[in-house]
Amino acid sequence: MKGAEALLRTLVAGGVDVCFTNPGTSEMQFVAALDRTPEMRAVLTLFEGVATGAADGYARMAGKPAATLLHLGPGLANGLANLHNAQRARVPLVNIVGEHATSHRQYDAPLTSDIAGYARQASGWVRSVSHVQTMGSDTAAAIAAATQAPGRIATLITPADCTWLEGAAPAAVSAPPPPARVDEATLQSVAAVLRRGEPVMLLLCGAALHEDALTDAGRIAAGTGARIAAATFFARLPRGAGRVALERLPYPIDQALEFLQGVRHLILIGADAPVSFFAYPGKPSWLTPPDAQLHILARPEHDLPDALARLAEAVNAPPKPLLQSFEPRALPAGALTPQAVCQAVAALLAEQCIVVEEALSSMMLAWDSTAAAAPHDWLVLTGGAIGCGMPVATGAAIACPHRRVLNLQADGSAAYTLQALWTQAREGLDVTTVLFANQAYRILELEYARTGAGEQPGPRAQQLLSLGKPDMNWTLLARGMGVPASRAATADEFNAALRAALATPGPNLIEAMI
Amino acid sequence: MKGAEALLRTLVAGGVDVCFTNPGTSEMQFVAALDRTPEMRAVLTLFEGVATGAADGYARMAGKPAATLLHLGPGLANGLANLHNAQRARVPLVNIVGEHATSHRQYDAPLTSDIAGYARQASGWVRSVSHVQTMGSDTAAAIAAATQAPGRIATLITPADCTWLEGAAPAAVSAPPPPARVDEATLQSVAAVLRRGEPVMLLLCGAALHEDALTDAGRIAAGTGARIAAATFFARLPRGAGRVALERLPYPIDQALEFLQGVRHLILIGADAPVSFFAYPGKPSWLTPPDAQLHILARPEHDLPDALARLAEAVNAPPKPLLQSFEPRALPAGALTPQAVCQAVAALLAEQCIVVEEALSSMMLAWDSTAAAAPHDWLVLTGGAIGCGMPVATGAAIACPHRRVLNLQADGSAAYTLQALWTQAREGLDVTTVLFANQAYRILELEYARTGAGEQPGPRAQQLLSLGKPDMNWTLLARGMGVPASRAATADEFNAALRAALATPGPNLIEAMI
Repeated sequence: MKGAEALLRTLVAGGVDVCFTNPGTSEMQFVAALDRTPEMRAVLTLFEGVATGAADGYARMAGKPAATLLHLGPGLANGLANLHNAQRARVPLVNIVGEHATSHRQYDAPLTSDIAGYARQASGWVRSVSHVQTMGSDTAAAIAAATQAPGRIATLITPADCTWLEGAAPAAVSAPPPPARVDEATLQSVAAVLRRGEPVMLLLCGAALHEDALTDAGRIAAGTGARIAAATFFARLPRGAGRVALERLPYPIDQALEFLQGVRHLILIGADAPVSFFAYPGKPSWLTPPDAQLHILARPEHDLPDALARLAEAVNAPPKPLLQSFEPRALPAGALTPQAVCQAVAALLAEQCIVVEEALSSMMLAWDSTAAAAPHDWLVLTGGAIGCGMPVATGAAIACPHRRVLNLQADGSAAYTLQALWTQAREGLDVTTVLFANQAYRILELEYARTGAGEQPGPRAQQLLSLGKPDMNWTLLARGMGVPASRAATADEFNAALRAALATPGPNLIEAMI
Repeated sequence: MKGAEALLRTLVAGGVDVCFTNPGTSEMQFVAALDRTPEMRAVLTLFEGVATGAADGYARMAGKPAATLLHLGPGLANGLANLHNAQRARVPLVNIVGEHATSHRQYDAPLTSDIAGYARQASGWVRSVSHVQTMGSDTAAAIAAATQAPGRIATLITPADCTWLEGAAPAAVSAPPPPARVDEATLQSVAAVLRRGEPVMLLLCGAALHEDALTDAGRIAAGTGARIAAATFFARLPRGAGRVALERLPYPIDQALEFLQGVRHLILIGADAPVSFFAYPGKPSWLTPPDAQLHILARPEHDLPDALARLAEAVNAPPKPLLQSFEPRALPAGALTPQAVCQAVAALLAEQCIVVEEALSSMMLAWDSTAAAAPHDWLVLTGGAIGCGMPVATGAAIACPHRRVLNLQADGSAAYTLQALWTQAREGLDVTTVLFANQAYRILELEYARTGAGEQPGPRAQQLLSLGKPDMNWTLLARGMGVPASRAATADEFNAALRAALATPGPNLIEAMI
């Protein structure tokens, strides 16, 4: 068997049956083997950042890795920003990168680069296949590495000759070891803190935000009076009516400091200790209040649902948490503001919708508005590398073909990876994009003063924070990529467009002129 | 003086007065300092790959570096593919990357990454500023490194605190050392080879393709009967009527082998020894014929024009080379084929046009068709990372505001960095894009069989080589980015559209439905 076929068959046998790709010459054997491996779904993207972001979105919703297939160093480089985000989301991902034939590297042909050097920056595991005979076992090792808790980017570099030569065989993939349980002493010491009656906050991330784990966190809150909060950025969070409501650590530095004020014990459960996103002159980087104690109940690689279940028992939490009730929202009227957009979203959100939010300057507004909407999942930018929203929405839709994806998308970030719209059209994905067209990097206008650059940008600085002159026309851009699109300039227009979009199969985009 | 201002003032004093950027929070001080440094022209791009590609195109035409300004590791990562191309083009480029404040890195905030690790893969020089006091001298060192022959990517990493603190001062930039002269013994031994009367080919790249150097190469050919050829990929080549005509090493492996057949002495002048772009089963990587001798007259870092001038004297070359005469072309008629597009381009090409060719499967057709057209410059993809054409065209237009840029652009590659169109619109650049809309990665269809993947792609493989379903609509995409666009489906339509486009100020795009 050729190496490429062993690679594909090992992936499929290991449960990795979706591949997001933009292949080149060195990956043609993989492409050819697709016709002999119908179990693998290959999804073409027009740009590698779409492929890696889609694999991230897929993993967040499917709970298992997709593969990518990228072309040499530059193809990998184009995917790195969204791999960075995926790594911060702690998802599993099998990142396959084609390489020159082993005998060809020495000649330094134009596309030669240090692929492993690129890969190391955004991978938890990197291996280059050296012989066709190990293609199967190397692929199995990549899947095992990717699926080890909490999830890793495993990059497998596949030289062209190792894909075209005969002599390979598929390998069996061993199940990943179960995540480590939190030891009893740690658990009891945190339970003791909770019993003291002092102001406590549980800060949750990763698997601590799975629905069952959240229920246990809600029970602990109900039994002890502890505040429960999500980290600012997380891979996926079930929320809305019928779910445990929780707070969320704000992004802006001053709001984050205020949020944590008065907390005496901050208990981390799969979350990192809160730090500011950027450094700002005269502001702290470390956000835990000086008079608060930090306790680590569980790290991301621990069995977080188990830890929360046991902690709930240890503090004799009541069997039921307080659940969010449904609060119907009226549709907005009048001018189309970011507030109006978020209000309409909250009013019209369909049950089990997957919301992918990369709205940046409207981030907290969108979050707050939808707290009591129909039950839904919320996915956000985890690593700060803008341009994840449209790709993540694409991958989430492939993972969950029977659920509508709603992508709340800032225009500046959308411009990074707008090619994702084409893949949504080709695959007929049920993705509705609400494009916040403010024709500016509004978030940078907010950040400008915080960095001590001055109170207001001068005219030349303002030019670099503006997306106007010319305004991008997202209706035309979406149609150019094959996605039906419309423009809404008033709340009424937006309400009607959103209602229609959510009810229409396939992708669509609403350009909200806010 | 704040660090950011010292950075900017040192750049400007060092002749670096154009900056292609997509800034973020950590670069706000640089943005603010623009209002105090009007000598610097800052050009906003919607994606970092546009910024780095534009800096490449600028350097090819201006003969001096532009700066970039990128946001942390992911911003750099997005720019790496075109930095790879720029490195292979051997252009000078000052690549400035913002970084977290020095005190902030330890907290591993979401955007933290190993910026130097990313940069090393596509830079000849990397330095991170450690103190605000050295901002000026570090910037001067970056410019010196970038401009050392033949040109390098110099990456300067600038922590945010080193830009916002006071205590910096601009530094003077020392002139780069002149390139080394080829030693006399080497020169005479190559002259002796030329005098032997055996079949000789001079293979030229880099500064050996500057107009004066080409004239000397043409004199050598006229005096000795040597063939003169350009490397397959080069940064810039003046050609057309009144210039020295030369051959070009073809890209396809079989054509390249045939091209070199019969050569007994291959003399490298700024060019690498020819190797195949990819490895193919059963084909050699090393293309120099087994019975040929390889001679290195000059490496890229040598003074190549000087070497050619001295070699011409050493072989008593005649004072004048044979020059290409102008051969007017008729306009094509009938169906719009790639041939018809190239014929119309040759017929209508304006004098001193800058042609940026990333037409891939139409690469040699475009080249051959225009050999006897009006005098022009020809710029190509140097590193094989597709998506350079539109950015390079953007940068070339900024370097040469009084010359029309004609971008011959394949659709699949264009989809990588279409955001460049927006910058062309914002800056009002005279760029005409001819978009070869064949709705396929045609080059991969050609490569498929060469890699031994099979004679014809199967139906599932074919899906990954096709850009159809849905077809991209480039007229809408260009208009969405603010660039006037039209579609041509016949040769007559294309002739009329191209004639109008070349005569209309500002950017425009013609979607050629081939």
